[in-house]
Amino acid sequence: MTSGAAPRRRGRPARTEADSGPGARERILQAARTEFAERGYDKTSVRGIAKAAGVDPALVHHYFGTKDEVFAAAIEVSFEPALVIPVILGEGTEGIGERLARFFIGVWENPATRAPLLAIIRSAMTHDAAAKVLRGFVLRRLLERVAAELAVPDPKFRAELAASHMIGIVIMRYVIQVEPLASADPEQIIEMVAPTLQRYLTEA
Amino acid sequence: MTSGAAPRRRGRPARTEADSGPGARERILQAARTEFAERGYDKTSVRGIAKAAGVDPALVHHYFGTKDEVFAAAIEVSFEPALVIPVILGEGTEGIGERLARFFIGVWENPATRAPLLAIIRSAMTHDAAAKVLRGFVLRRLLERVAAELAVPDPKFRAELAASHMIGIVIMRYVIQVEPLASADPEQIIEMVAPTLQRYLTEA
Repeated sequence: MTSGAAPRRRGRPARTEADSGPGARERILQAARTEFAERGYDKTSVRGIAKAAGVDPALVHHYFGTKDEVFAAAIEVSFEPALVIPVILGEGTEGIGERLARFFIGVWENPATRAPLLAIIRSAMTHDAAAKVLRGFVLRRLLERVAAELAVPDPKFRAELAASHMIGIVIMRYVIQVEPLASADPEQIIEMVAPTLQRYLTEA
Repeated sequence: MTSGAAPRRRGRPARTEADSGPGARERILQAARTEFAERGYDKTSVRGIAKAAGVDPALVHHYFGTKDEVFAAAIEVSFEPALVIPVILGEGTEGIGERLARFFIGVWENPATRAPLLAIIRSAMTHDAAAKVLRGFVLRRLLERVAAELAVPDPKFRAELAASHMIGIVIMRYVIQVEPLASADPEQIIEMVAPTLQRYLTEA
């Protein structure tokens, strides 16, 4: 924690009280999720995220780099692949369809996790930069790791078909809000969708 | 075609050469599709549509009403339910899964139909008014008519599950462009998805 007389370097912030401590990085990420969720990709700026987190904008750049890189980090926090992967794949591929459907619907039924995820999907639908980030993230971090566990032909293609179904349900249920799907019991959705995901992920 | 000395009424346009003839309504619809596709919902105006169609804005209001109603008409032109329904349902429910998948992928593989559909989906993702129009349209015009032909429990729910899968594939393949799905042979997608749609639409 240098301060005071130390010369300021380009790209490194002058530290203040609010900047210090291990909490700053986490505060920035939380602020980024909130800003992207409430304002959308276009209207969110590194400066706005810094302000919401109570830090210098240079600290945001220092930890994360560009706006796109902050967005990628915010996505990663939302998906939490380190938590997702064991839940879905921990018990092997038996019952993976139901576990995947249940986990995914559960995340979206929780308003706290739904808002930032909605913002991510909306941003990716309308901004190529956001789509590129989601594509890179989804591809590298989540789907490739799921695909690596599958004993089917074209495992990445299969994982993407499963993901596409879940994304489509999210859009019909939570974004466009078509009835009766928008008000359907989550268990009814899981029951119908689980065999589809199971087939994609396990049947040759 | 009154003109000249006739007093202008509120909400009715003064007719010009370009306004006259049965082609004006069609020209307005085409212009609306193009404007919504290229500019998105927010930046498209009745005035801009009128200008692109070479007619008075009042004629757009006369034929279609508000911007939302022009949007609804543009959606209807894009989906063309009068054409869609017979193709999908004409031969009954045997093979309906494959016909639905093939028709849907075909529409999206055609760049001429893809652009306006993309614009509609993007608009519905980001604007509640557009989502409401799509919801009303999808519900009333397309899914209810498909559901009416199904002999399954909760036919609307089943039709929406099938639609959700197709919408999700569209988003992964054409919007976010995740590989290998984005470059996959359409026949490979149809082959995998058809049994899913068949199950949703026909199995109790």
